Parts: sequence; C-alpha cells; structure tokens
Amino acid sequence: MEKMYPVSFRDVKIRDGFWKNRIRLNENVTVYSVMDRFKDTGRFEAFTFNWKEGSDAPKPHYFWDSDVFKWMESVCCILSVKEDEVLRNELEQLIELIDKNRCPDGYFNIYHTVVAPELRFRNRDNHELYCLGHLIEAAVAYYYMSGSDRLINICDDYINLVIKVFCEEKSAGFVTPGHEEIELALFRLYRVKKVKKYLELAMFFINERGKTEEKNPDWYNSSYNQSHMPLRKLREATGHSVRAGYLYSAMADAAKETEDIELTEASKALFSDIVNKKMYISGGVGSSHHGEAYTVPYDLPNATAYSETCAAISLMMFADRMKDIDFDSKYADIVEREIYNGIISGVSLDGKAFFYENPLEINLSDRNRHTSVNNVNEHFPITERKEVFGCSCCPPNITRFFASIGDRIFSIKGNSPVIHQFMNCSTEIDGVGIDVTTVYPRDGKISIAVTKGKGRDIYVRIPWWCRELTVSEAYETENGYMKLFVDSDSYKVDIDFNMKAELYVSSALVPANAGKLAVMYGPVLYCLEKNDIGIIPSAVEIDINSEITAEYSDYFGANILYTDALVNENENLYMTIGDVKKKRIKIKLIPYFGFANRGESDMAVWLNYSK
Amino acid sequence: MEKMYPVSFRDVKIRDGFWKNRIRLNENVTVYSVMDRFKDTGRFEAFTFNWKEGSDAPKPHYFWDSDVFKWMESVCCILSVKEDEVLRNELEQLIELIDKNRCPDGYFNIYHTVVAPELRFRNRDNHELYCLGHLIEAAVAYYYMSGSDRLINICDDYINLVIKVFCEEKSAGFVTPGHEEIELALFRLYRVKKVKKYLELAMFFINERGKTEEKNPDWYNSSYNQSHMPLRKLREATGHSVRAGYLYSAMADAAKETEDIELTEASKALFSDIVNKKMYISGGVGSSHHGEAYTVPYDLPNATAYSETCAAISLMMFADRMKDIDFDSKYADIVEREIYNGIISGVSLDGKAFFYENPLEINLSDRNRHTSVNNVNEHFPITERKEVFGCSCCPPNITRFFASIGDRIFSIKGNSPVIHQFMNCSTEIDGVGIDVTTVYPRDGKISIAVTKGKGRDIYVRIPWWCRELTVSEAYETENGYMKLFVDSDSYKVDIDFNMKAELYVSSALVPANAGKLAVMYGPVLYCLEKNDIGIIPSAVEIDINSEITAEYSDYFGANILYTDALVNENENLYMTIGDVKKKRIKIKLIPYFGFANRGESDMAVWLNYSK
Repeated sequence: MEKMYPVSFRDVKIRDGFWKNRIRLNENVTVYSVMDRFKDTGRFEAFTFNWKEGSDAPKPHYFWDSDVFKWMESVCCILSVKEDEVLRNELEQLIELIDKNRCPDGYFNIYHTVVAPELRFRNRDNHELYCLGHLIEAAVAYYYMSGSDRLINICDDYINLVIKVFCEEKSAGFVTPGHEEIELALFRLYRVKKVKKYLELAMFFINERGKTEEKNPDWYNSSYNQSHMPLRKLREATGHSVRAGYLYSAMADAAKETEDIELTEASKALFSDIVNKKMYISGGVGSSHHGEAYTVPYDLPNATAYSETCAAISLMMFADRMKDIDFDSKYADIVEREIYNGIISGVSLDGKAFFYENPLEINLSDRNRHTSVNNVNEHFPITERKEVFGCSCCPPNITRFFASIGDRIFSIKGNSPVIHQFMNCSTEIDGVGIDVTTVYPRDGKISIAVTKGKGRDIYVRIPWWCRELTVSEAYETENGYMKLFVDSDSYKVDIDFNMKAELYVSSALVPANAGKLAVMYGPVLYCLEKNDIGIIPSAVEIDINSEITAEYSDYFGANILYTDALVNENENLYMTIGDVKKKRIKIKLIPYFGFANRGESDMAVWLNYSK
Repeated sequence: MEKMYPVSFRDVKIRDGFWKNRIRLNENVTVYSVMDRFKDTGRFEAFTFNWKEGSDAPKPHYFWDSDVFKWMESVCCILSVKEDEVLRNELEQLIELIDKNRCPDGYFNIYHTVVAPELRFRNRDNHELYCLGHLIEAAVAYYYMSGSDRLINICDDYINLVIKVFCEEKSAGFVTPGHEEIELALFRLYRVKKVKKYLELAMFFINERGKTEEKNPDWYNSSYNQSHMPLRKLREATGHSVRAGYLYSAMADAAKETEDIELTEASKALFSDIVNKKMYISGGVGSSHHGEAYTVPYDLPNATAYSETCAAISLMMFADRMKDIDFDSKYADIVEREIYNGIISGVSLDGKAFFYENPLEINLSDRNRHTSVNNVNEHFPITERKEVFGCSCCPPNITRFFASIGDRIFSIKGNSPVIHQFMNCSTEIDGVGIDVTTVYPRDGKISIAVTKGKGRDIYVRIPWWCRELTVSEAYETENGYMKLFVDSDSYKVDIDFNMKAELYVSSALVPANAGKLAVMYGPVLYCLEKNDIGIIPSAVEIDINSEITAEYSDYFGANILYTDALVNENENLYMTIGDVKKKRIKIKLIPYFGFANRGESDMAVWLNYSK
C-alpha cells in the first residue's frame, strides 16, 4: 500500500476565487466574531483562573477550554500566512495564561481546577482529554507558525501526566476518553516531533477502547461514545457523530502509522457504512438531535436533521485521512461534498453567525403547530444562524476549517503530485511547481501547469459528479483519478469536467426522500426557499423536462439556478388526479450553503417533480 | 330552512352485508370484550363505591364513569334490537348501583365522592359534567330500550343540582365544563322529554362558553377547550379534537332547536375549516398527540397522526347533525368517510382490540432509531391494537357507534324520505316502506323499492366520490342529492354509482402528502402494508397507467386491490435520475380500516407514483 502525504496549506498559495473570498472573510470577520463572542461569554477570562464560587464571572464549563484552543489553532493558521497583530497578541496572552495557570504536575483544565478539582480524571464524560487534544492541535499549529516549542512543551508535560495516570498507575476513573479527539491530536504531534510516546499513547487509547465496559452516564449506552466493542471490530458508525468522526479519523491515522490491517479494514467499513447509509446528500451526518447521533441506516429525516456542522467537519477529516491509506477518489469526493455543502452551511454569508444544526428542510408552520397547548417540547433546528451558542464547538471549528482549507488540495504519492480539490492556486511539491487556474465551482474547467515535473506522473481526481470529461492531454484512470504523464518541464493540461445541473434521487430505502429529487451543480447542492417564490417548497413540482439555467451570483459566490415548476392550483384538500389544475411558474434555486441568509424562510433540498 | 329529522336505528332493519357483520361482531365480541376489560381494570367495581385510601381496589379515575356510561348506552342500543340476558343483567346491576350510591342531592360521580369529595365542581378539567353528559345519553338510550324513566329520573335530579349550582347560585369553581359533552346530551334528552329546563341548561353552557376567561390547567390555553371566544364567533377548529367535535355537535343541535343564525353560521364555518384544512383523507382529525388537538391548517403528518378514534366519531356526529340544518350532501359525505375509514380503523377485525391513535403511515424503523441513546421520549402511535387503555374512551365509543349505526341511514325532510347511507336494509318512514338492496361498499349498485309512497319525493345522496351515475328512473339533483318522484305505490329504482378505484392527491399546501397519491374504492380508503410485498411502502411507486383490479375479500369484508408498481433497485444512496433502475412488481392494497390486523407492519396510505 503506497501511502500519500498531504501538502500543507502553508505551502499553497490560494488566489482569488470562491475559496480566497471565504478565507478573507474568515480572517477579517469570522475569527474576530468568534473571539468577541468568546470574550462576551467569559471564555477568555476563564483562562485567568479567577473564577470562585459566588464570583461575578461566568462559571467555566468543562468544554470551554477546547473552544478557545480551536480558536487559537485557527489564529495560528491565519498567522502562518498573514500577519495580524491583534490576533497575535490575543494568542500570546492566552499562551501566557495557560503557562502561568497550569498545575505544577502539568495538568491544565480550567473547570477541573477552579470549579471541581476533586473531579480531575474521575468522570469519563467530562471532556478533559478532549480538551487536551485540542490544546495539542493548537500547539502543533503554533509550532508550525512560530517555530516555537513553547506550547508543545506545555502539552508534553501534560501528556507525561496522562501517561503516568492512565498507562502506568491506571489510577483515573476511566480507561479511555468519553469524548475522543486526543488520539488524532497525538498522531499530529507525533508526525511533527516523531517522539514515540505520543504514538504509543494514541495507540493505547485506540487499543484499550471498547475492551472493557466503562462507566457512562445513564442516558446513553457505550455505542454512543464508540466503546461498545474493540475498535478493530467496528463496522457500523454509531453514537455521537462528532466523537465518531474524530475517533474514526484517529483510526485511519493509526492504520497509516502502524499499517494495522484490522484497523484499515474497520476504517474502510465505517466509511462505507456512513456514506452509503447514513449521510445526507449535503454530507451532513448524525441525523438525530437526541445524542447528536448516528441512528439506523437510511434514517435521514430532513426537517429534523441534526447534521451538526462539527460532524460534517469530522467526516471531512476522516475522509481526508482515508485517502492517504486507500488510494481512491471516493474519499476526496466526500471531502468535496462536505466543503461545498454541509460544512459551510454552518456559517452565514457575512461570516458572523452560525448553525449548529443544518436541516435540509424548513417548514415554518411546524414551529407553531401547537396553537392550544403550551410549552410543547418538540425539537426543531433554529431557522436563522446565531452569533453564539452555549455549546460553541462549531464556530471555532469553522474558523480553523477555513484557515487550513489549503490542506485539502494536494498530496504526494510516491513522487507523483496528486490534485484532490480544485481551487485557483499554486504550490511546489517535491520540487515540482503546480499551478491550477479555475473558477470552480462556477464551472468545471481546470487548467493545470506543471513546471520542472518532467518524467513524473500527476494524478487529478475526477469528481464523482462528472458525467463527461474533456482533457487536452492523454491520460489513464486509476481509482477515480486521471493519471497524466508529465512529458516536459512546462507541461500544461486543460480539463473540463463539464459541470452542469444534475438531478439526483436517493435510495428507495430513505423514506424521507422517496419520490423527490435534489439538484446539484457539480459539487454544490441546491435548495428552494419560499422567500424566492412566495410558495412553500413542498407545493412545487420541478418540471424535469425544463432546462435548468445557471447564472453566477456574487452574493452567493456561486451559481444560482433557474428552471420551471408546476404548482397545483386546485384549492380542495383532496381531489382526484384528474382534477388537479397545474400552473407553471419559474423557480430560483440557491446553493444550499447559502440558505437562511435572507431572513427566515421555508426551505427544501428534496423537491417534488412532475415528469 | 326546512329541517330534517333522523330515523332511529330502532326503526331500521339491517340485513346481511358489511354492516350486519360488523353489528354482529359488536354484539357478540366487542361489547363483551370492553366489559371484560372494564371489569379487569376495576371500572365496574368502582360503582360499588367501595374504594378507600389504602384499599386494594384500583383507585377510580375521574373519567371512569363516562367509560362505563358509554358502554351502558351501547348495551341499551343492542337490547333495543336483540335480547341478551347477560348484558341486561349487567346493565340493571349498574343502574341499581348508580341509584343506590348517588348522593342525596342528586350528584353522581365516583371519583368526586370516594376519592376527592372536596373537589366537587371545583376543577374545570375534572370531567364531571362530561360524565353527566354520558349518563344522560345512556339514560336516553335506556328509556328508548325499556320505556322506563328510571335512569332519566336519576339524571333529572342531578341536572336540577347542576342548574342550582351553575345557573342560580353560580357557586361552582367554573362557569362551563372543561370537557364538553353535556350540551349535546341535554339536547338529546330535551328531544325525548321536551322539558324546557334541559334545553335551557344546554343553551346556558353554549351561551356562557368563552364569554369570560376561565381557569384552566397551565399546560393549555383556552382555545384547547374551545372557550377562547363566544361560540357564535368561532370560525376555526382548535384544541382537543374530541371536545371540539362534541361542542360543535351541540352547536349544530342548538342551531336546530333555536334557529339561531349566528350559531348556524359558526357551525358551518367550523365544519368547513375542518374538512377543507384539517382532516386526514381517512376522516381522522386532531393531528397532534400534544393535547390530542387540532393544529394549524394543512398540518397533517402521517406517521405521527394522532387522529383519535373518538375524534373521528365526534366529527361524524357533528356532520350528521349539520345535515339536518343545512341540506347538502357534503355532510353525509363526511359521515360516510368516517364510517368506512377513520372510525372503524379503531377496532381490530376480530372485534377485540382498539386503536386510540390512527396513523396513516408506519415506519417501524422510526421506533428504534435511537440506538445509542436511552429513554428517548419520541412519541409514535402504537403499531398493533390493544385490548385496553388507561384512558379508554374509544372502545365504548366504538361499541355504541356500531350498535346505533342504523341512525345514519335515513331522514325525513318535510314528507320526503331521504337516504344518506347505503346499507342492505329496510325501514318505514311516515308510513312509507323503503327497502334498499346493496352489497355496498363492494360495489356501487343500489336498488331501492318504495311502497306506499306514491306522490312523494325521495332523496338519495350522490356520494362525493361518484364520477359517473346510472339511474333507472328520472331524477333531478338538489344539493348533492338526487330527487326522485315516486309515481306508484310499488316504485323501484336501480342506481349504479359506478364504484371503482380512484387516485387522489391532496392540496399542495399539505407538506406531508406532496407528490404522493392515495387510492380509494368508493368511500373506502386503501393502504399498502409491507407485510404484503416485503418492501417498505415508501420505496414503492404506483404505476398510475396500470389497471387496478378489485377482488372481494371475506377477511376484510371489502375489496382488496391489485395493481403494478415500480421499485428503484439501484443500491446507491444517491444517484442521478438517469441511473435509476426500476423493477416492476405487483402490489396488493388493503382497506385502511384493516391495517395492522396481520401483525406489525410498515404501512402507508400516501404512496409515491411514477407517471
């Protein structure tokens, strides 16, 4: 198995286009917006460790540290490519506070120091190792940005404590973390520093997980945090979808680092279970808000879709790692599905507000059905993005996602550069210059210039949605990638993936989508908002014989689509098919990622159609 | 306005056929089954008033009386047409106990005597007047059956107390009942005895209702029990659907007795609001289990349909009364929709078990979606009928429904007999003999023989579903009825309503049904059970160009239907429309009223279709 290694975003220059706009918005607005909200809510102040019972300051929550660590990681990524004094100062102050306030034995966790020190390492669900994982990820990013080991050293002390307590003394109240994340962070740290204990600790948590029954809160069983069986036996994605995505990512990391065949097989099976049975067409996963969890196969309700932004990010991370151990375009296909849909629907087009849940349908009347009964506890996703949440894991996950989006583009496989994602950008890989010119996802034309690559192969992913391909140079295909032979030091190839609107249906086994279709334009999923047509989307039947025209929209940064639809004008509640009177209307479809940006609206991805 | 007056079931002889079979099952099985369950649960024993704190006997609930009163009413109806010593003895024993244990001041309520006497007439929601209403209905039925005033006299004493407490002293904790029912019962009693105080008390509750704010439990607002505004102003059905149906029935009664134009207009508007915006195609109403309530227009979810059996009965009662004050076939059309669908789906084909909720779709996997989270409180209707419920209002409502089904067939309008429902039966109305021969709803052929009717008109409802009509004699149409002139004393007419399978769609404003169809055969609604095809119904697309054939089934007592459907065989989760591979299968549709009789099954009424 020839492994692939990714090319860091630090080595990729992204030029103007869809992603550069998003990166700028992230740097100038979103990362600040998240910082301000974290300050408003006391998350930054908590790092002063000034909270006391009865104090005015908000009481730290045990996952607050991780929110700020993800923000720090985002800032490190931003500072790697662009100076920003304000962000740098905030970052350094936080590091200073962490260094100052950590315990003498290396332990660092605000809640478990100032609120409930007696609970240190007692409750499996208390997110301590999860928080440490995010601290490690921030430390790795800080190291790459600054060259300084300061934050890594802080982590190293804490990791030594964890090794002592968990591996040697076995004195903690649990064996493996209730919320996974530390495992993938340790692999990242190991890859930077090559210190074996990091790999060993990661493998300890992977090997021990699910071996013995561990104590969990009463409201869930051990499949919720993926510890219901040894990980090598896992075949079906279960439980909390973010925990699952982080764990499965670490399993892929472990498979890569240790070449463990059982872990490789388990990872492949989990990936297949998710993308073939449990994933929304948006790439969203975790269909129930009860436990933010994976449920049973084909259970993909649209209006109550939980589909957490972090879960989409975690599935992208898992897919991105899988491509390194199993060369197949299906993994980068999922990365692409996530980055144009289920992840970026999580942030508003102005960069300031966030969705935690990403429904694929909104029926506003559902919210007000109970006209005569008070306080009915029916859960529905919110209908407009908010600036902050009590549980605010998604916003800083979004900021680090945009700041490091360049990580998803290139790999090297042997000595062959591989292009997975299509952005207007350039890089140098192993001495070979690669320049990609494109307006993707506005259209599917890609021009690639390769300098100093003579005699090498380059691989270019053929996207899953591509039905017709034009390539100016000769190529073979291999596992969904085109393989091009670079025959000169100034090689050029023009590719046209022939991007156009396509109509998708889902498996007959998904009750929610039966009889409906979804529209995509290349990798971008579309939806219909009542705001654009004045009619609830469920009342509309797309006329599939009508042409679909695309028109670029600056507002969305992508095409909007126009086509014809029919609406039943008969006002009866029930009527025979023969009595239906249909009116033809023009409809406008907008990118799903941009829904709910122009006020609250009924919305649907899956649409009825008339043939 | 020429009012109509119904012909009692006691004056109608129903011969073999769909209804005779159901009536026999009710007499021989269901009424006994309900009695046995009521004995098992202590409802009969409660009438001995032997319950004391700490006693072994089950603690009476404040609505138990009404359950038994409805059963007593059923027994009176049965004994009116057929002797049954066992039932008669049970009935007489209960009457004896009521007479013996009622309070000296006429009050009778088990809970408020043996459990919480201090709450007498204090809590508006405690169902005391509702229970009295059902006692009055039983008393009226007992009087018709036996000629004895014994139970009416018991009621009269209680009614005198109610008049004193509510109308004169105004000393109760509320002005009008929280659960309506007494109003319609008082109208029934008034019609039998013509004692004005019964009419006055009924009108008192109707006139006072909604005039002033009354104290309700915190969990609902006053629209829940239809007291949010004076009744003459009501235009939209709200709240608890059974209370609503009983109240609206009483409003129609009041309109009939007092010729109150405002009440007539309000009743018409409420009827229209229900049947044009809030009624399932089965006739079910009250779409949410939260409050068993009406919700907003077009909110008709299928899998979570509450659609209580009692609510369907109450809508039938309302419609049946409306026809008497507004001569239009649309009312008896709704009666027909109820009696072949939403009501009788409430009892099993063996007559022993009951549905409280009548969903129009069952996805079994919904019940087990939460694989990793414990004790998730998601409400779904049960999937198989049960023999008894804690709240057991529906079973004895079913028994009195079948025992008095003959009430729905005939009326007299001026001196013209009117035929509303089609059963194999005969009657004599105002000296005119009418004999109806039919196998309805197996087919739509009706032969009517009229003896001694020379010179009169007779009216025969043309059912809403009829698209093509053959009549052997000349007729005119009037408000959806055919009007035939009886030109001899041995007049005969043969009518064929040309019953066949029809495909129905619903308003574009009902999100749940968008893009789907439902199949009816005359008045009978059909559904698809996975048990018959091995595939979940949502995976099936009816081929609407395929012929639908009907075959009579003894098991269901109605036709079953066969047609072709297509199933997407592509195993991908998502695919372009062009990649769908469809397999043709034969499917079998069964009457909706008979679903869930052959074990638990996925089921759907609204089906996808391919054109």
